[in-house]
Amino acid sequence: MPNIAIVYFSGTGHTHLMADAIASGANHVSGTTAELLRITGEQIVNGRWQDDAMLEKLNQADAIIFGSPTYMGGAAGQFKAFIDAASEVWLRQGWKDKLAAGFTHSSSLSGDKQGTLLYLAINASQHSMIWVNVGDMPSFYYGKDDGVNRLGSFMGVMGQSAMDMSGKNAEIDSGDKLTAERLGIRMAEMLQKFKK
Amino acid sequence: MPNIAIVYFSGTGHTHLMADAIASGANHVSGTTAELLRITGEQIVNGRWQDDAMLEKLNQADAIIFGSPTYMGGAAGQFKAFIDAASEVWLRQGWKDKLAAGFTHSSSLSGDKQGTLLYLAINASQHSMIWVNVGDMPSFYYGKDDGVNRLGSFMGVMGQSAMDMSGKNAEIDSGDKLTAERLGIRMAEMLQKFKK
Amino acid sequence: MPNIAIVYFSGTGHTHLMADAIASGANHVSGTTAELLRITGEQIVNGRWQDDAMLEKLNQADAIIFGSPTYMGGAAGQFKAFIDAASEVWLRQGWKDKLAAGFTHSSSLSGDKQGTLLYLAINASQHSMIWVNVGDMPSFYYGKDDGVNRLGSFMGVMGQSAMDMSGKNAEIDSGDKLTAERLGIRMAEMLQKFKK
Amino acid sequence: MPNIAIVYFSGTGHTHLMADAIASGANHVSGTTAELLRITGEQIVNGRWQDDAMLEKLNQADAIIFGSPTYMGGAAGQFKAFIDAASEVWLRQGWKDKLAAGFTHSSSLSGDKQGTLLYLAINASQHSMIWVNVGDMPSFYYGKDDGVNRLGSFMGVMGQSAMDMSGKNAEIDSGDKLTAERLGIRMAEMLQKFKK
Repeated sequence: MPNIAIVYFSGTGHTHLMADAIASGANHVSGTTAELLRITGEQIVNGRWQDDAMLEKLNQADAIIFGSPTYMGGAAGQFKAFIDAASEVWLRQGWKDKLAAGFTHSSSLSGDKQGTLLYLAINASQHSMIWVNVGDMPSFYYGKDDGVNRLGSFMGVMGQSAMDMSGKNAEIDSGDKLTAERLGIRMAEMLQKFKK
Repeated sequence: MPNIAIVYFSGTGHTHLMADAIASGANHVSGTTAELLRITGEQIVNGRWQDDAMLEKLNQADAIIFGSPTYMGGAAGQFKAFIDAASEVWLRQGWKDKLAAGFTHSSSLSGDKQGTLLYLAINASQHSMIWVNVGDMPSFYYGKDDGVNRLGSFMGVMGQSAMDMSGKNAEIDSGDKLTAERLGIRMAEMLQKFKK
Repeated sequence: MPNIAIVYFSGTGHTHLMADAIASGANHVSGTTAELLRITGEQIVNGRWQDDAMLEKLNQADAIIFGSPTYMGGAAGQFKAFIDAASEVWLRQGWKDKLAAGFTHSSSLSGDKQGTLLYLAINASQHSMIWVNVGDMPSFYYGKDDGVNRLGSFMGVMGQSAMDMSGKNAEIDSGDKLTAERLGIRMAEMLQKFKK
Repeated sequence: MPNIAIVYFSGTGHTHLMADAIASGANHVSGTTAELLRITGEQIVNGRWQDDAMLEKLNQADAIIFGSPTYMGGAAGQFKAFIDAASEVWLRQGWKDKLAAGFTHSSSLSGDKQGTLLYLAINASQHSMIWVNVGDMPSFYYGKDDGVNRLGSFMGVMGQSAMDMSGKNAEIDSGDKLTAERLGIRMAEMLQKFKK
């Protein structure tokens, strides 16, 4: 049974909602299970991330979808601490040929989010994973107003919401949510095309 | 008299309007002259760009601002043909220590425009130029609605307009225009701070 | 019969030799045919690339491997002219779900070649292709001296040779050649894993 | 008196040696003082970096040079934790118009180090700093064998040494050391050209 791990950090809750939408999309595809794995600051001691159980779940997954808010034009420090800890997996190429994809969120429309997605793809390339791009054109190109890929992002899904540091009542744009769900569906379908 | 060369390609006219706004901003600063240098497809023969007079103007400039539409997630081929032709200047480091900046335009809000700006900065780094970043926070962070840096771009100015391939009646967003003018002012002021 | 198109520009012949090594690797995998499609400056008129027959071959391919020398920290202008012309394919997403990979060559060890590979991946993402990363760790990490991935590049294959503008007697490093051959093999095997 | 702060993380000591070489170069320029500010894992509690005294020194500096090893194709998690903490400075644009530069180190020749330098420049752009590029061509282009810019990096200085996780007896390449010293000199001289 193909399974998808969605590993992400979320500060204010927006990136969590995007992860949730991706899982929701994937879980609608028969024969797929998606699981949310949320990185927390508490897993980081003296600058180093550790959670062996979470790493083991990632090792067992058929696909890994990576997500982080964009902070200062890059993935969050907490997320990067996780990535660095996974370098032990990298050295033995434990995630080789798994499918991978990415998503990010920030408060500006562009907001240097592309840099975060590029980084997620760079990390996946070091792990010799296969990168699954978004697969959706901005739907407004075809006269639709459902908000699919409204920001015009192709290497991963971008979400954008007005800045809200409180972390309470976080909401994401309906178009971004739909784009995230569709990434989940796409990954589930791609896994079924791909012989292990 | 400090002078600023704005070298750019424009297909549908939007990038031209941004170049024009940058020049307008710079020319309002006393003691500065800004000149538009527009690259055309006709300057390219057998895949190679050539315009010795334009290159000579760039050699004489105190600062160069580079601009291109974002096509397929990168600078336009016509613009890159110009960049490649300038590799002869690069080999003798003829633009070393000139100030540099960049701008781009496309039809999506994010639209992989950051990749184009990163490339413009990479090229300037090879020339050992000094890169002047945008200098404006998104004004909505401070409750303003003048549209300054509305897309949230920092390495260069981004403009966005709905797709219009006709090239007729091109218009740019008033906030993007204002952001471009402010980059022109910023570059002019920066030149006056900088002893040659 | 799965077929792989290798579309590339080469100025001095080094990138051509890398393309040739990739094809050689792919053609050794039973049931695969790889074809070289070399972009030339003569295909560019008034700054626009055109070669309908070549585009049609790309439309028919199961996988496309993109290659360009790194000039001034990015893909060659001639190569970008081809990419821009393929935007008509992009608008109808004609290459969606094809597999893709990339390679580049320059005269410095690092030489900003990563930027070129990132761009090749960005372009493929706009086409909604699936990006196949290199899949080889630097072999020296494991005490081998065969030169596989000697430069440490993961998103695509990098080659490096001392500058030789003559274009005569171009040669590439034996490790880079081996890495390129292995990318060809990898792509052929990946195609066989992937149900259309 | 112009002063340069060099803020960096170093795991095995190589990035520290590069920071030290930059400081040494800068301190040879009359009227300049350079100070090393080393980020440590111990400054990170529950995933968040804090060191108010270090931030205050950065606020006082005329120029900031940022450095991090390249881990998994990006800046170290510990370094990113510092960057994220500095977002409070960003919101009030406290480092606006300071000069900035960057450096990195890893065990492969290319090793995706360019991605780290691009990120350092992106972060500086968000702070509206002025980015000072390397300024040295690879000296082998001119027949020299002093190792200056031997890797061919332009946006910042790259160092490369064989992997040594012990952190004992770290050494860096003599060419990389010289390139780093020259960046320190260049920044000191650039500060003197630049009126505040």
